[in-house]
Amino acid sequence: MRNTGASFSAGQCKFTVWAPEKDAMQLVIDGRPPADMLKDEEGYFELDVSDIAPGARYRFAPAGGDSYPDPASHFQPDGVHGASAVVDHEAYRWSDAGWKGLPLQDLIFYEVHTGTFTPEGTFEGIISKLDYLSSLGVNAIELMPVSQFPGGRNWGYDMVFPYAVQHSYGGPDGLKALVDAAHAKGIAVFLDVIFNHLGPEGNYLPQFGPYFTDQYCTPWGNAINFDGEWSDGVRAYFCQAVMHWYEHYHLDGLRVDAVHMMFDNGAVHFWELVSRELNVMRQRMGRNFYLIAESDLNSPHVVKSPENGGWDFDVQWLDDFHHALYVLLDESGRDRYEDFGSIGQWGKAFTDGFVHSGEYVRFRKRRHGASSAGIPGEKFLVFNQNHDQVGNRVGGERLSMLVSFERQKLAAAAILLAPYLPMLFMGEEYGAQTPFFYFVSHSDEELIQKVVEGRRKEFENYKWEKDPPNPQDETTFQGSKLDWSEPERGEHAALLRWHRALIALRKTHPALRHFAKNDVRVNIVSDTCLVLHRRSADQQTELACIFNLGE
Amino acid sequence: MRNTGASFSAGQCKFTVWAPEKDAMQLVIDGRPPADMLKDEEGYFELDVSDIAPGARYRFAPAGGDSYPDPASHFQPDGVHGASAVVDHEAYRWSDAGWKGLPLQDLIFYEVHTGTFTPEGTFEGIISKLDYLSSLGVNAIELMPVSQFPGGRNWGYDMVFPYAVQHSYGGPDGLKALVDAAHAKGIAVFLDVIFNHLGPEGNYLPQFGPYFTDQYCTPWGNAINFDGEWSDGVRAYFCQAVMHWYEHYHLDGLRVDAVHMMFDNGAVHFWELVSRELNVMRQRMGRNFYLIAESDLNSPHVVKSPENGGWDFDVQWLDDFHHALYVLLDESGRDRYEDFGSIGQWGKAFTDGFVHSGEYVRFRKRRHGASSAGIPGEKFLVFNQNHDQVGNRVGGERLSMLVSFERQKLAAAAILLAPYLPMLFMGEEYGAQTPFFYFVSHSDEELIQKVVEGRRKEFENYKWEKDPPNPQDETTFQGSKLDWSEPERGEHAALLRWHRALIALRKTHPALRHFAKNDVRVNIVSDTCLVLHRRSADQQTELACIFNLGE
Repeated sequence: MRNTGASFSAGQCKFTVWAPEKDAMQLVIDGRPPADMLKDEEGYFELDVSDIAPGARYRFAPAGGDSYPDPASHFQPDGVHGASAVVDHEAYRWSDAGWKGLPLQDLIFYEVHTGTFTPEGTFEGIISKLDYLSSLGVNAIELMPVSQFPGGRNWGYDMVFPYAVQHSYGGPDGLKALVDAAHAKGIAVFLDVIFNHLGPEGNYLPQFGPYFTDQYCTPWGNAINFDGEWSDGVRAYFCQAVMHWYEHYHLDGLRVDAVHMMFDNGAVHFWELVSRELNVMRQRMGRNFYLIAESDLNSPHVVKSPENGGWDFDVQWLDDFHHALYVLLDESGRDRYEDFGSIGQWGKAFTDGFVHSGEYVRFRKRRHGASSAGIPGEKFLVFNQNHDQVGNRVGGERLSMLVSFERQKLAAAAILLAPYLPMLFMGEEYGAQTPFFYFVSHSDEELIQKVVEGRRKEFENYKWEKDPPNPQDETTFQGSKLDWSEPERGEHAALLRWHRALIALRKTHPALRHFAKNDVRVNIVSDTCLVLHRRSADQQTELACIFNLGE
Repeated sequence: MRNTGASFSAGQCKFTVWAPEKDAMQLVIDGRPPADMLKDEEGYFELDVSDIAPGARYRFAPAGGDSYPDPASHFQPDGVHGASAVVDHEAYRWSDAGWKGLPLQDLIFYEVHTGTFTPEGTFEGIISKLDYLSSLGVNAIELMPVSQFPGGRNWGYDMVFPYAVQHSYGGPDGLKALVDAAHAKGIAVFLDVIFNHLGPEGNYLPQFGPYFTDQYCTPWGNAINFDGEWSDGVRAYFCQAVMHWYEHYHLDGLRVDAVHMMFDNGAVHFWELVSRELNVMRQRMGRNFYLIAESDLNSPHVVKSPENGGWDFDVQWLDDFHHALYVLLDESGRDRYEDFGSIGQWGKAFTDGFVHSGEYVRFRKRRHGASSAGIPGEKFLVFNQNHDQVGNRVGGERLSMLVSFERQKLAAAAILLAPYLPMLFMGEEYGAQTPFFYFVSHSDEELIQKVVEGRRKEFENYKWEKDPPNPQDETTFQGSKLDWSEPERGEHAALLRWHRALIALRKTHPALRHFAKNDVRVNIVSDTCLVLHRRSADQQTELACIFNLGE
């Protein structure tokens, strides 16, 4: 499968760009005359350049017209509208040769937004917190998207260069340093990637090829072209992006955004293609790489093997667990999640997985989902909150700002004692009181107005009474940063100790290290009380966890 | 799963219509005052009416406004814009109690367009030809769509009442009489149905509910809503249509039009739902019912079981077999099928199935398909021509009007000795010289102009030089009728005998009754010659068929 972008090795650089419907392409390197590239029959333009140094800035000019940054750029040192820069991936001196990854069942995730996790808002900032994370006991950082997005403030889902590392976070070398340092401390690093759309500013892909299709729609406009005319190049582009993160950044896996908004009705589904290529790559790399899906489908197909018609994800997010528990923790949540509310649903989330496994769901105005009863627990990831639930509240309130200290403790136990992979949202472990807002930093006035208005409209629909803070305003971003003086104080410190203790228990208790559904039982004691029974693989050890939601 | 329409039994009729977003619905029976229907929580309006006779005309009036025919009408005696009529399915006296259906491997299909097969253009006309078909040896009629379409002349793909039987063909009783008579002669009857769009005239479904979605596109406009909001009712409507044909018309199966234009990304695919319901119905009915897919996907999923992520079709059309052979028979075919042309491809069609199993296909501008090497032969249906290839030529020419007599004989042997289910297009067995054109009989002038223009444009794109005959013109339809004096004459009679002999051989030779791919081999002798080897299940009998395409 073809690779694109600038591939630098030993003073030589091969430039490749896919533009099947263009007749001509020029490579425009800063300080040199434009050079014609040669097109092959698959629609790829190539040019080998010797005598070039890493860091060299370049663009591509399709059909003799304007020049644009490289769709497969590894680095945009001047932002999304600037030139791309050649990266020498051989230059970084890795020290993680001994890192073999972690078994899937051992993973305890911690979701991080690089820009707001630390005062620095960089990868280096995260490195300074690795000891803290180690002492907490989490062993898998899940970075919100770091692919290049417009400006310096963004959740990351507006990214427009899937292969590039955000310059304001520290660029390629910064990410490598983080992964290397994390591995040194026994912490895996996962990255959130978006394969269902590109952001609204700085998307130059349509200048090169038919990356998008009007055959299917997404909330963000036309869908990515995974099955139409010329889709081979699009499939290769996104498939190679997976390999790129694996190979060049030593990542331990990817969390893939909203896989239900990727449409592919061809004979070989995009994720089947990725599965094949990834198995080859795993052989080569000698350690594992996990794919985690955010899926709104409640479908077992997501984690099934391609032989069984599946997409071969290792893990999928279990939103139903969140919804079922959240409405029990916070009564006002029932307005937002009208199809949840009974403790039996939460029990089903523990024993089966999907709460909606074919039932009619009012919110969706249709039956939803299929049974996940046969799927092992390690194939699901659970959380009490993530960037979405917090950031999509008008006040950006975390769970800690909505429910009592005791209920936060119960919620922590729920995910950390569950037979699933748990994930904390940065700051959750100490009950942070700082909000997490939605923020952007676009440069186009019209787009900014659209985003601000769109956001206001969305909250009106949800019947929130006040307006959200202006996403473009820098104070909205600054106000979303964690306050690292908090965890040392009072109840924060107590909650932090509670998390440490639960994580330690999870790592050592034999009943908590066994995820088979047969050995997970739930007794519903009352409308507000449930007992979770876990049993060890050798059937010798049992654990009963009593969750009492009564006042 | 809910049923809709008028369900008549013993003097009582239950009327049901699904309109989830309407507040009110009236049943308007001819000669009676409108009556309010009662809505339940699933969005179905119901009313039981006693003292009503079969044949009573009725309409539904959503929300107190205009009235429209029943979306699940079983009979439109006055055409698509007229009232619906109550049908008493218990009244028909079936004589096919002894009919147990035919094993899949035994089926030899014969595609019939009811309107042009006989001078009468009716089901009764087909009955008069059953002895002819019997003596030919075919044992499965595949009727082109007979669901109610606008006017009296149409291929059937413009149908707008999936449950109704075209009035001008003979209506429900006419179809029952045909099926009954066919079964009496050992002939199965299959029906072509369309679940991916409705025709452009007389589609009143949107007046009732969200049957369509703008999430996906088809060449005919918005796709059917199989997975969006309110899709349960749409899924039930089309799923029950399958059961309707099985139960009320004793059909032996359905051929489903263009399944690749049905989009469903939910956890339980529409065809998985059908598979479940059909298995229950098969128990009840005590004989089999086969689903055959027209699929442009070259995907093994179409015939795989739902447990393996498949759609559970019994059979899928193998267009590649046609394309691979046709370009060898008729050199001018290479312009139309630019990705075919080598005898090796035809050999692959014999041994594997899909010719394009992942290769780049110029016509599609992408890689296409997956391997079908492991799929048993009886899961594919092959043909030398069907309504599409013939009718989509500007001159409506059959294979018999394009290639020599000797090549027609070779083509006949190719499909009848193949390890697949063969299908003849009406008249093919005697090399009919009558064309088969595209024809319609719309009533809306604007639409007629659009169809005529659209047709002309389409042929321009295919670089045909002359204009096609006007589809709306009745002479176009009349000119497409078979001439039943032909089969008795000269080469026609010889070709007919040839078909009879081949079919007789297919039915009796042990090597031709065994479809396992392991026992099918092909030797490519030259660019124009191929030997097909077949072997019996007990490995005791072999057959070598030499196909020589040289001049």
